[in-house]
Amino acid sequence: MAQNVPQEQWAQVIEKTGGPVEYKKIPVAKPGPDEVLVNIKYSGVCHTDLHAVNGDWPLPTKLPLVGGHEGAGVVVARGELVDDVQIGDHVGVKWLNGSCLACDFCQQSDEPLCAKALLSGYTVDGTFQQYCIGKAAHVARIPKDVPLDAIAPVLCAGITVYKGLKESGVRPGQTVAIVGAGGGLGSLAQQYAKAMGLHVIAIDTGDEKKKMCLESLGAQSFVDFATSKNVVKDVQNATKDGLGPHAVILVAVNEKPFQQAAEYVRPRGSVVCIGLPAGAYLKAPVFESVIKMVTIKGSYVGNRKDSAEAIDFFQRGLIKSPFKVVGLSELQMVYDKMHRGEIAGRYVLDTSK
Amino acid sequence: MAQNVPQEQWAQVIEKTGGPVEYKKIPVAKPGPDEVLVNIKYSGVCHTDLHAVNGDWPLPTKLPLVGGHEGAGVVVARGELVDDVQIGDHVGVKWLNGSCLACDFCQQSDEPLCAKALLSGYTVDGTFQQYCIGKAAHVARIPKDVPLDAIAPVLCAGITVYKGLKESGVRPGQTVAIVGAGGGLGSLAQQYAKAMGLHVIAIDTGDEKKKMCLESLGAQSFVDFATSKNVVKDVQNATKDGLGPHAVILVAVNEKPFQQAAEYVRPRGSVVCIGLPAGAYLKAPVFESVIKMVTIKGSYVGNRKDSAEAIDFFQRGLIKSPFKVVGLSELQMVYDKMHRGEIAGRYVLDTSK
Amino acid sequence: MAQNVPQEQWAQVIEKTGGPVEYKKIPVAKPGPDEVLVNIKYSGVCHTDLHAVNGDWPLPTKLPLVGGHEGAGVVVARGELVDDVQIGDHVGVKWLNGSCLACDFCQQSDEPLCAKALLSGYTVDGTFQQYCIGKAAHVARIPKDVPLDAIAPVLCAGITVYKGLKESGVRPGQTVAIVGAGGGLGSLAQQYAKAMGLHVIAIDTGDEKKKMCLESLGAQSFVDFATSKNVVKDVQNATKDGLGPHAVILVAVNEKPFQQAAEYVRPRGSVVCIGLPAGAYLKAPVFESVIKMVTIKGSYVGNRKDSAEAIDFFQRGLIKSPFKVVGLSELQMVYDKMHRGEIAGRYVLDTSK
Amino acid sequence: MAQNVPQEQWAQVIEKTGGPVEYKKIPVAKPGPDEVLVNIKYSGVCHTDLHAVNGDWPLPTKLPLVGGHEGAGVVVARGELVDDVQIGDHVGVKWLNGSCLACDFCQQSDEPLCAKALLSGYTVDGTFQQYCIGKAAHVARIPKDVPLDAIAPVLCAGITVYKGLKESGVRPGQTVAIVGAGGGLGSLAQQYAKAMGLHVIAIDTGDEKKKMCLESLGAQSFVDFATSKNVVKDVQNATKDGLGPHAVILVAVNEKPFQQAAEYVRPRGSVVCIGLPAGAYLKAPVFESVIKMVTIKGSYVGNRKDSAEAIDFFQRGLIKSPFKVVGLSELQMVYDKMHRGEIAGRYVLDTSK
Repeated sequence: MAQNVPQEQWAQVIEKTGGPVEYKKIPVAKPGPDEVLVNIKYSGVCHTDLHAVNGDWPLPTKLPLVGGHEGAGVVVARGELVDDVQIGDHVGVKWLNGSCLACDFCQQSDEPLCAKALLSGYTVDGTFQQYCIGKAAHVARIPKDVPLDAIAPVLCAGITVYKGLKESGVRPGQTVAIVGAGGGLGSLAQQYAKAMGLHVIAIDTGDEKKKMCLESLGAQSFVDFATSKNVVKDVQNATKDGLGPHAVILVAVNEKPFQQAAEYVRPRGSVVCIGLPAGAYLKAPVFESVIKMVTIKGSYVGNRKDSAEAIDFFQRGLIKSPFKVVGLSELQMVYDKMHRGEIAGRYVLDTSK
Repeated sequence: MAQNVPQEQWAQVIEKTGGPVEYKKIPVAKPGPDEVLVNIKYSGVCHTDLHAVNGDWPLPTKLPLVGGHEGAGVVVARGELVDDVQIGDHVGVKWLNGSCLACDFCQQSDEPLCAKALLSGYTVDGTFQQYCIGKAAHVARIPKDVPLDAIAPVLCAGITVYKGLKESGVRPGQTVAIVGAGGGLGSLAQQYAKAMGLHVIAIDTGDEKKKMCLESLGAQSFVDFATSKNVVKDVQNATKDGLGPHAVILVAVNEKPFQQAAEYVRPRGSVVCIGLPAGAYLKAPVFESVIKMVTIKGSYVGNRKDSAEAIDFFQRGLIKSPFKVVGLSELQMVYDKMHRGEIAGRYVLDTSK
Repeated sequence: MAQNVPQEQWAQVIEKTGGPVEYKKIPVAKPGPDEVLVNIKYSGVCHTDLHAVNGDWPLPTKLPLVGGHEGAGVVVARGELVDDVQIGDHVGVKWLNGSCLACDFCQQSDEPLCAKALLSGYTVDGTFQQYCIGKAAHVARIPKDVPLDAIAPVLCAGITVYKGLKESGVRPGQTVAIVGAGGGLGSLAQQYAKAMGLHVIAIDTGDEKKKMCLESLGAQSFVDFATSKNVVKDVQNATKDGLGPHAVILVAVNEKPFQQAAEYVRPRGSVVCIGLPAGAYLKAPVFESVIKMVTIKGSYVGNRKDSAEAIDFFQRGLIKSPFKVVGLSELQMVYDKMHRGEIAGRYVLDTSK
Repeated sequence: MAQNVPQEQWAQVIEKTGGPVEYKKIPVAKPGPDEVLVNIKYSGVCHTDLHAVNGDWPLPTKLPLVGGHEGAGVVVARGELVDDVQIGDHVGVKWLNGSCLACDFCQQSDEPLCAKALLSGYTVDGTFQQYCIGKAAHVARIPKDVPLDAIAPVLCAGITVYKGLKESGVRPGQTVAIVGAGGGLGSLAQQYAKAMGLHVIAIDTGDEKKKMCLESLGAQSFVDFATSKNVVKDVQNATKDGLGPHAVILVAVNEKPFQQAAEYVRPRGSVVCIGLPAGAYLKAPVFESVIKMVTIKGSYVGNRKDSAEAIDFFQRGLIKSPFKVVGLSELQMVYDKMHRGEIAGRYVLDTSK
C-alpha cells in the first residue's frame, strides 16, 4: 500500500539524556496493523521537547529518542486494520501518540489519562524526523486547505489551551482571565476564548504585550501584574460587577499567579492550571475557598475530540499563531535560543532541510 | 394572624465577644412583611456557634447576639406578603436565614454566596431563643411526621455534607472517600453517600470508629490514617481497580488530610473541602494535579433546594444522627464540653427548659 | 420616596375578551412592599399580546386588562422591602412579572415554571401604560447606556431565543440550524448564536431572507425549505461531515418543521421548540429517535439570569433588532397589521404619544 | 497462544431470512489482530434476536447468520495487538460487538452511534455458538465471582435500562416512573433505579405484577394503567408534591404510554424511550411541552463504560434477574414461545447442550 517510502531518512536523535541532539540518517519504521506512517512536513518545537532532552521530568524517556510532538504531514503507509485514514490524508502527530482505547479513562474519552498512553517524542519516537509512526485512531485529521506549517504549533499549544478553556466551564458571554496572556500559550488562549464568545482579561506585563493583547488578540482589558498596585482589585474591577472573572486560565511559568488566582476569581468560579512551572504548588486558603465555593483544577492535553475542535476553529480562520520556519537540521540552534529565553512565538521545523 | 405569642421569651444572649452566654428574658420580635416568626422547639449546637461567641472568624457578629442556627419549630406568625407558609407549619431556621433573592448568585440558586445573606446566630439573632425570625422564602419546610429534635442537627450538618457530596460530582455506583468519617459530619456524610448509591471508604482512626463506620454507617472499607503505613496506597487499594476513589470529602479538622487527598484521588476525580480547620491551606503539586486532571473545590452550606432534599432523605428513614437533648438553659455547659473536646454526637437544646 | 408620579395616566385597556383595546386614562397603581413602579418609556408589541386580546389560549386573562410585556423604563417608586433597585434605575418589565421565589422550581432557578408566576399583560396589568408595577426581584436591570426603545423587543423575543440556544446544549464551534430564521425570533436567534461562537444553518424561504441571513445575520448557510428537493439532505450537507447540526431551534409557526427536525438533526443532537404553532404536535418515530439518541425539548421564556445575559450581549453591540416606533395610542393599528400578517420586524410603542 | 480450541463447533444458524434456525456444526473462526475468541458458556435470548430471524427491521442482517448478543464466556485466543484481555478472562459479547473507536461518536464515548458499529447476531455472527469472535476493546470484562449464566441477560437488558436511567438525568432522591415495570426490562430498571438511590413509581397492570413490583423490585408505588380512572393524576399523586416524577422510563411495547408520559412528567422532567414498539411515534403537544419545558429523548444501548458500571451493580448483589436455562439446541423452542408471548423472565442457553 505504501509507495515511494525510502529506507532511510533524516532525523534529530537524542542518544543520551542531556543531549545534544544529533542530525543524522536513521531507518524508516514500518507501521503495525493499527498504525500509519506519516511523512512529517513540519514540526513545531515546544518547551516540553527541552524537558525530554534534559530528562528533568519525573517520567523517564525512551533512549535513543527522536523528539517532537507537533508534527503535520501526509500519510504514506498504513497497517491492515486501518480503514478510516487514507494514503494521502493530511494528519497531525500529537503528544498523545496512542492510548489503549479500552481502559476506564479511554472509555470515558479521557485518553490523556490512559496509563498505557504513548507519548510522541518522549516514550516513542516523535516528529523530528521525516517519517513518523502514529496510531491511526489518534492522528489528528487535518483538512487539506489548512497549511501544514501553520497548524503544527496548534497541535500541541492550541489544543491544550482550548481544552483548558473547555474545562473551566465558562459559557459564552462570561469572562475569563488569562495569566501569562502575552506568551505563546496565552496568545492562543485569548484567540480561542474570543472565538468561543468569551470576554477576556489579559494578565501579563509590559506595554508591548498590552498593545498586542488589546489590539490583536481580542482581550477587552489588560492588567499589568508588575505595575499594578493591587492585582486582585484590578482584575475584579475589569468585570462589570466587580465580582471577578468566572474563570482563570493559568499558563504562567512561575508560582505566584497560581496562588493569587483563587483570590480574584468570582465566587463559584474556577481556576484552571495548564502551565507547569517546575516544582510549583497550587495553594489556597481553605476558609476562603470554601466560603466562595471556588474550584481549582488541572487541565492536561486535549483528547481527540478536543483536538478536532481546536483544529476546526483554526480552519475557520479564527486563530493566528505567529511562527518562524527553519530547517530540521537547525533544531539545536532552536534549543539554544530556548535555553537562553530568546524565543518569541513558535519555531517550526521544515523536515526537508 | 399570630395567636398566643407572648411579649417576652427565654433566650441565650451573647452581650460581648468572648462570652459568656447569658440565659435571660428578652422581647419577642415581630415578623416583617416577608418574614415568619417561629416558635423554636429544638435547636442543635454547632461548632460554628462557638466561633460566634469567640469572634475568632474574619467576619464580625451582631452584638448583642442570640446564637444558634439549627432550629426546628412551628410557625406562629407571618408577614403580609407570606402566603406559602402557613401558621402551624413545621419549619427549620438554618445558617442562611435570608438572602436578597435577586443578585447574580441568588438568581443561579447559589443563595449561600449572596453578599447580603443574613446568617442566623451570627449577623441576625438565631435559634437559641423560643421565638425566632426567619425569612419566609428561606425557612426549611419540615414534614409533620419528622421529629423536631432529631431533624435539628440535620439542618446544618446534614445539609452541608449532602451538598458536598453533590458538589463532588460522583454518580451512583462510584466511590467516595470520607476523611474524618467517624466525626459528626463524617457520620452523616457516610449515610447520605450510601443513600445516594455510592461506595464509601471511611478514613479515620481507632477501632471503635472503624467498627461504627463498617457496621452502622454503611462504609465498605476503612483506612486508619494513624496506623496505616501508606495511607495513599491503602486508600487506592480500597477501590476495585486500585486507581483510587472518584471523590474525596474532607470534613477533617486538621490540615494534613487536605494535602494528601489530591494524591490518592482517582485521575479526573474531585477533592471537596467542607471542614474549616483554622488557617489551613489547600495545597497540591501543580505537575501531578495537571497530569491527573484533579479538581479541588470548596463547598459551603447548601442552598434551599439542597436543604429540602437533605430533609427528604431523613424523612425516608435513611439518615440517623445520634443526639442528646438538654435544656436551652444549659447552653454554657455544652460550650464548655465543646471547648474541652468532650462531645461525641450532637447536643440539641429543648427551648422549653 | 416616589416623586412626580401622577395620579392618572394613559393606557390601552382590554375591557372584554376579543377586544378592541381602548386608549384611555386610568389610575396609577402603588407598589406593594416588594414591588417597584416603572415609568414605561417604550414597549414592544408581541404576538402573544394578540392572544391575550383574543383569549384563544387555554389560560384565562385578567379582565379588564392592560396588555404588554416588553416594557423598558425608569423606576419612579418602590416598596419598603426593596433595596437593590434604586429610584432612577432603568429596568425592563417582562412576561414574567413575578414568581413566588420559594417553590421547588423557583429554588432551582426555573422561575418560568412557578405555579404562582404573574404574567405581565396577561394575569396582571402589563406595559401598555405609562406606569407599570413589577416585582422588584424580577424586573430586568438595564444599563444606562442601552437605548430603551431598542432593548424593548429584546426583553421578550431576545431572551426567549437566547434561552432556547442555551437549552439546546450546543457548545462554541458546533452547528445549530434555525428554522424560521428570517422571522423576528429567527433573526435574533441567528445573532445570538453567532455571538455564542456557533455556526448557523438558516432555514427559511425566499431570496430576500436568504440574503439577509447570509449577509447580515451571521448564518454560514441557508436552506430554502420551499425550493429544496430534499430538506433533510440539504441541511445535513450544510455540515462539514454531513451528519447534521448538533441542534435545531424551532421558531416556526407551522407544524411541519417540527416533524422534520428530528430527521436531520445529528445523532445525539437536540431539537428545541420555542415557537408555539396553535394546536401543533411534536412527533418523531420511536425507532429512529432511540437509535439516534435524539433529544426533543421545549423551551419557554428565560429566567432572570438568562435575561441578564441576553441584555448583556445586546449591550456589547452584538445584537441588532430592527424596530419601528409609533405612539402607544396607535396600538390597535399595530394589532390590525399583525392580524393581517403585514408586520416585518417589531413595533415599539412610545408611551408619551 | 490459543489452546484446545476445536476446529468445529455447534451453532444455531439462520440460513435465510424468516428462519428457521438450524442447529449444526460450523467452523470455529480465528480472531483478527484486535479480536478475541470467546468460548461462550451461556447466552441470553432477546426479542431482538427474533427480529434478526424475521428480518423485519429496516437494517438488513448478514446471511447466513449466527444470532445472539448476550453471551458470557471465557477468552480462549486473542490477536497480536490485544494485551489487556488475557486468555482465561471472563468476558461478555454484547450487541455492540465492535466500533471504529475513531469517529466523532466513538471519540465522545458514544460507540453505539458509530456508523461502522458491528452488531453481534445481526451484522456479524453472534453468541448462539460455542466460539464467538469479539473486538477486544468491546468485550465486557466480567469479574470471576460473577456467574456466567446469571450475567448473560444483564449484558443487553440490564445495560440498556441502566443507560436509560443515566440518560434521564435523575439524581439520587428523585423519582422515576417506569412504564412496563413488570416486564423483563422493567424489572431490571426498577432494581437499578433503587440501587441508584431513586424512588420508583411502577406502572403496569395486574395484581401479580403489583405485588412483585412493590415487594421484590423496590417500587414505592404502583399505578395500574388498566384499572386506573386517571393515569395522569394517579402517577402525579404518587409523588409527594403531586407534580409528577422527575423522569419517565418507557420500556412498554405499545404506543399509548409514549403519548401519556409527557403529560404526567414533572415540569423540566424527561421522558426516556427505550422500548421499540414497531412503527410507534413519540407525540406530544407543542404548547404544553414548551410551557413545561419537557424533554423527550431516545436511549439506545449503553457504551462500554455504562456496561462496566451495570455489571458492577450486578456484582455487588443489587440486581436479580430471573432466568431459565435450556440447551443451545432448544433455541427454536424458545423462539416459538416468544412468538406466542408465553415467556416470563429470560431464557438463557447453555452452549454445551
